[in-house]
Amino acid sequence: MKNIRFLILLLSLPCLVIGQSHSHTGAQALSYPDIEGYVTLKTDLHQHTVFSDGNVWPNIRVQEALRENLDAISLTEHLEYQPHKEDIPHPDRNRSYQIALEEAKAHDLLIVHGSEITRSEPVGHSNAVFITNANPLLAEDAASPFVEAKKQNAFVFWNHPAWYAQRPKGNPILSDFQKERIKNGELHGIEVINTFDYSEESLQIALDNNLTIMGTSDIHGLIDWDYTEKGMHRPITLVFSKNRSLEGLREALFKGQTVAVYNDLLVGKEEYLRPLIKASVVIKEVSYLPKTSILKVTLENISSSDLLFENNMPYSFYSKPPLFTIEAGKTLDLQIKTLDIKDKINLELKAMGAYTAPKVHPVISWEIKVD
Amino acid sequence: MKNIRFLILLLSLPCLVIGQSHSHTGAQALSYPDIEGYVTLKTDLHQHTVFSDGNVWPNIRVQEALRENLDAISLTEHLEYQPHKEDIPHPDRNRSYQIALEEAKAHDLLIVHGSEITRSEPVGHSNAVFITNANPLLAEDAASPFVEAKKQNAFVFWNHPAWYAQRPKGNPILSDFQKERIKNGELHGIEVINTFDYSEESLQIALDNNLTIMGTSDIHGLIDWDYTEKGMHRPITLVFSKNRSLEGLREALFKGQTVAVYNDLLVGKEEYLRPLIKASVVIKEVSYLPKTSILKVTLENISSSDLLFENNMPYSFYSKPPLFTIEAGKTLDLQIKTLDIKDKINLELKAMGAYTAPKVHPVISWEIKVD
Amino acid sequence: MKNIRFLILLLSLPCLVIGQSHSHTGAQALSYPDIEGYVTLKTDLHQHTVFSDGNVWPNIRVQEALRENLDAISLTEHLEYQPHKEDIPHPDRNRSYQIALEEAKAHDLLIVHGSEITRSEPVGHSNAVFITNANPLLAEDAASPFVEAKKQNAFVFWNHPAWYAQRPKGNPILSDFQKERIKNGELHGIEVINTFDYSEESLQIALDNNLTIMGTSDIHGLIDWDYTEKGMHRPITLVFSKNRSLEGLREALFKGQTVAVYNDLLVGKEEYLRPLIKASVVIKEVSYLPKTSILKVTLENISSSDLLFENNMPYSFYSKPPLFTIEAGKTLDLQIKTLDIKDKINLELKAMGAYTAPKVHPVISWEIKVD
Amino acid sequence: MKNIRFLILLLSLPCLVIGQSHSHTGAQALSYPDIEGYVTLKTDLHQHTVFSDGNVWPNIRVQEALRENLDAISLTEHLEYQPHKEDIPHPDRNRSYQIALEEAKAHDLLIVHGSEITRSEPVGHSNAVFITNANPLLAEDAASPFVEAKKQNAFVFWNHPAWYAQRPKGNPILSDFQKERIKNGELHGIEVINTFDYSEESLQIALDNNLTIMGTSDIHGLIDWDYTEKGMHRPITLVFSKNRSLEGLREALFKGQTVAVYNDLLVGKEEYLRPLIKASVVIKEVSYLPKTSILKVTLENISSSDLLFENNMPYSFYSKPPLFTIEAGKTLDLQIKTLDIKDKINLELKAMGAYTAPKVHPVISWEIKVD
Repeated sequence: MKNIRFLILLLSLPCLVIGQSHSHTGAQALSYPDIEGYVTLKTDLHQHTVFSDGNVWPNIRVQEALRENLDAISLTEHLEYQPHKEDIPHPDRNRSYQIALEEAKAHDLLIVHGSEITRSEPVGHSNAVFITNANPLLAEDAASPFVEAKKQNAFVFWNHPAWYAQRPKGNPILSDFQKERIKNGELHGIEVINTFDYSEESLQIALDNNLTIMGTSDIHGLIDWDYTEKGMHRPITLVFSKNRSLEGLREALFKGQTVAVYNDLLVGKEEYLRPLIKASVVIKEVSYLPKTSILKVTLENISSSDLLFENNMPYSFYSKPPLFTIEAGKTLDLQIKTLDIKDKINLELKAMGAYTAPKVHPVISWEIKVD
Repeated sequence: MKNIRFLILLLSLPCLVIGQSHSHTGAQALSYPDIEGYVTLKTDLHQHTVFSDGNVWPNIRVQEALRENLDAISLTEHLEYQPHKEDIPHPDRNRSYQIALEEAKAHDLLIVHGSEITRSEPVGHSNAVFITNANPLLAEDAASPFVEAKKQNAFVFWNHPAWYAQRPKGNPILSDFQKERIKNGELHGIEVINTFDYSEESLQIALDNNLTIMGTSDIHGLIDWDYTEKGMHRPITLVFSKNRSLEGLREALFKGQTVAVYNDLLVGKEEYLRPLIKASVVIKEVSYLPKTSILKVTLENISSSDLLFENNMPYSFYSKPPLFTIEAGKTLDLQIKTLDIKDKINLELKAMGAYTAPKVHPVISWEIKVD
Repeated sequence: MKNIRFLILLLSLPCLVIGQSHSHTGAQALSYPDIEGYVTLKTDLHQHTVFSDGNVWPNIRVQEALRENLDAISLTEHLEYQPHKEDIPHPDRNRSYQIALEEAKAHDLLIVHGSEITRSEPVGHSNAVFITNANPLLAEDAASPFVEAKKQNAFVFWNHPAWYAQRPKGNPILSDFQKERIKNGELHGIEVINTFDYSEESLQIALDNNLTIMGTSDIHGLIDWDYTEKGMHRPITLVFSKNRSLEGLREALFKGQTVAVYNDLLVGKEEYLRPLIKASVVIKEVSYLPKTSILKVTLENISSSDLLFENNMPYSFYSKPPLFTIEAGKTLDLQIKTLDIKDKINLELKAMGAYTAPKVHPVISWEIKVD
Repeated sequence: MKNIRFLILLLSLPCLVIGQSHSHTGAQALSYPDIEGYVTLKTDLHQHTVFSDGNVWPNIRVQEALRENLDAISLTEHLEYQPHKEDIPHPDRNRSYQIALEEAKAHDLLIVHGSEITRSEPVGHSNAVFITNANPLLAEDAASPFVEAKKQNAFVFWNHPAWYAQRPKGNPILSDFQKERIKNGELHGIEVINTFDYSEESLQIALDNNLTIMGTSDIHGLIDWDYTEKGMHRPITLVFSKNRSLEGLREALFKGQTVAVYNDLLVGKEEYLRPLIKASVVIKEVSYLPKTSILKVTLENISSSDLLFENNMPYSFYSKPPLFTIEAGKTLDLQIKTLDIKDKINLELKAMGAYTAPKVHPVISWEIKVD
């Protein structure tokens, strides 16, 4: 066709029309507060597109991330598993990354270059992110992709360690191969939440081996169908970074500065999970109910997770059971029976949806001053 | 007027018209399972109408109860506090009961004859239910209403012991007067939940003094405005009775066979709360996921309370965190990593929304057989 | 009791507790724009309480009105029909009004003194509002209440003329008695909407006899159960008054300056209905889509009625069918194919939910200027 | 890799896990009744995937269709516009069809082989469906694709005739080229609804030239984002076919047996639109209200379109305005004032959301028998 340029012009217009009526009623933008010294970045570093066994073009992954207000994503195509190769022969395994980068240009979204190293047990699946070139990671033997990833200064994490398709008992155990990788500095993190599954055993492995705690969607289909239409969000990793940059993100991952989040479930090392929850609850108003020694405290949950708390104080509540939820983005009044009039108290709550170790909930404390 | 009979005929018609389009979208009917040996009756034995300081005619209380599918209610007008007496002089304090009884005739709702004995501290407010005549309970001195109530074989309970208008610290303490009443067999129960307030201290008093645990709405305005439009139900007392009758209900109250319920909060003696929760969760399907040792168990919550559970087993879950909710009337799949293939296991869950004592949650166990 | 004053103090407190958590999620506040020269008052001048055959104390009617943001209400108890007289003997028929007035003191709600004159056919039921004393309206014969009402300068309207309990065909016809009342200046308005029923025949009678068009709830039970929980509002009369005062309201009613509204249904004389709809739709943005002759116009519906319109212009729409709804409080974009670039056009829409006569919809015109 | 077969086995499992929790809360299944002599097929014959300028793999289009309960779809990739050709070089233009066919195997969904012939004005865009091979339709000149399509016995329709990117006035006019195609039997239908746009002018062209009336989504992104999350459905074409088969569908399209539907908007020739609406409303119960001549008729709308009707009878309604909606899948009571007791009447309603010609609504009549 001669006038293909004109045609392209014409064909690009309907998107504008469609775009104008996007009210994004489906997904709610995620929001989590920064913690002292760090910017909190919302990331999903394990995703697939048509360039491996996913079902969408990379631009959809960028748009999904923008709808949920993520800060960074990585499209981690299987290097070895290419079911669409009859139609997408792509010898260059960086294409998915390049297309996402192009799509994200007009937006404030960080695209992390990544790939999935895909093996059966005992090697399993691993993501290498912050790579510079995916092609050299494609190899016959098990170890060399990890060696190459290290050469590229990539951050590497173990995917879905509890996945029962690979482990029929659902119980992750570090293999000798993986111990070797850790020892060599070739494996740095572990997915504690993948898709719908939180694995307590994976959390224990993370703690025992000082691996970075990760949460990812591993999405193949549509975020809408798997999460949004059910009123949920995908699993993400909150990364506490010096600044909002790829370099900051990379450094923070290596340092293990993360909390894995899946809706109301928060899993992380105590040193990051505790300040995250503390920052998520803002004390708004404090005053004694007239003629009583009952202290009314208004709390606002500025995070996107409903927070379930249990009273951990010697004082009981008026008009609220000891176990209560502050919904995401909402405020709630506590009426604390302090018995005497105090000028300050420590509000002490156990965060029941949060885990710093298997079955261990952090107790968070806020100093409350009465004017 | 001559044709007043015709007029009444005419005036009664609009109610039919209005009635036909009642779809009851506002309130959901409450439902709780029976437990072994007992019928579970849903009751609200503390309510007010225009015959004391409430704002509605007794027929509204009957209709509200029918909408929430209650089994029994009591209209417990203040004997001493009569703010509408300029317009409703009523020397007969049984009128509220009589009108409700008339209204309930066409329906399957039990009306319990009751009254509120209203005093300032240290006597406080008490409800006498299953009275035969309210008028003799009206007296100057504090003790004689209790003596009269006992003479009528009434069941008497202490209202809102933590109410800060009477106790500025919100901390209920049994007075000598009340201890005397208990000793005399003139005080048998205590409200552990009143309006929006669950009081752990009142629960402790109930346990220490073997008082019947009660939950009531103490409604003055509209159930719709205080609860339904917020997506909530009023507090009620579940009473475990030999049968669905006034006599059965009365006997069960005297025996302390109750659980107080306020939406997802359940408070009761262990011997009744435990079988209630056990009966509320029905095991539907049990099978191992193919080629795994992961046992899938489908649970149905047949109660009207969302039930929050924490895993109390040595086995962890696949695809579900250790803390999870089975919504009222819904089913949920647990995937239990039993590590080996078992032919039976004990599903053991801690009921986090339930209390058998202050801060004490019951652990419930279901025997699961694998076919 | 000696300390009754203290008791009252105590008893008044729970209302504060209850009040604090009223979020009014149930009812949405009604809002309609003023029209040129007039303030638009939202009124419901036909309601019942326990003082005749209603089911609530007058304070509930005040609270219901405040929730729906009404400007004025009247509690029009049946003078002759007193089913609660065993308990509420009240020889003074002004009590319902007095109690409402007291309740409304702290709020910005006008209370209109009124009563319902209740007769069987052919006299029927009529409301007299803006009376000064209800007692003299109670009489044996049919005519004298109307004579008395006139003496008190009351505004009188015919209630539910199509009510099939009185008219089995549902077809209202003015009786000789009523014609006489109109001739004597003793009957000034007619309910065109009562409860759920809009009567086209009543509208015709209003137009033929120059009667004021009224819409009322005639509520006996709860506004919540009949309307709010179904996502609806009660029928009201919008009155176009010189100012927000009882005197302004009274004068406007006598002058017939009204529109009856029941959710999306608006019924009124053309001279008031047309400016009401015109003021309800605000033109927000006007511009041609780039490189086209398609004019995009953003319309905002600032009323509480969803407005259904049909395109009445020679131009068709892009991306919107000729029949479309602007939801209450929402905006909508029209894309008008003007074929040539214009600097102004008349937007002409037929208001399909509005009636100025039986089956007659007003066509409204807005002048649109293109910058 | 040696064990790629095992790997594939493993990789196919996550889909099962994800699949099990699909509750399809997002989209509601569409349903429209059959009409006499025909099966009603729900079709969307204009869609795109990554094989032209769409953003998803063909399997997503199949799953979207299954969610909305469509009977037939066609993936009509632009033959000439191939923005992904760097990654998907595909010389075989039938691939999109083949992959969809494979995906649909396990389901009851008809896949129609189709392609979009893409030209600038005055030729415009056209879809050829029921082709046998897409490759020969790719040509330099404008006419030969149409000649080839005819050779393959394809059904050809004009796409988005009012699209302002091609027609800045938004006013479709048949070009000489298109008139020639019609004369030659090479153009058989026209999109009257495309994406969000219903064009009255296109409807007029359809009627004037006896072209088949089509409605299509022309989806490029996700049905969820463009429609489902806004509570809407995509535009479809209802085809009235002898049976549920590709051959029946093809024949019915050639015969013009269609109605284009976009939510509550229904556009079609009178001979198909009238029986569709008639079949969509089922008369459930008929009886006179006791002691009145008011006939209560219960109507059920068994279609997935809300149906807006205007009373077209000499009788007026009780308790319902002349303009009313029967929501999709819901019932509604009409109370018709027949003035005398009849043993049958014709219920006559004008279908305000339906068009048989620009601005022309069909009047539908149901014979109602009173027992």
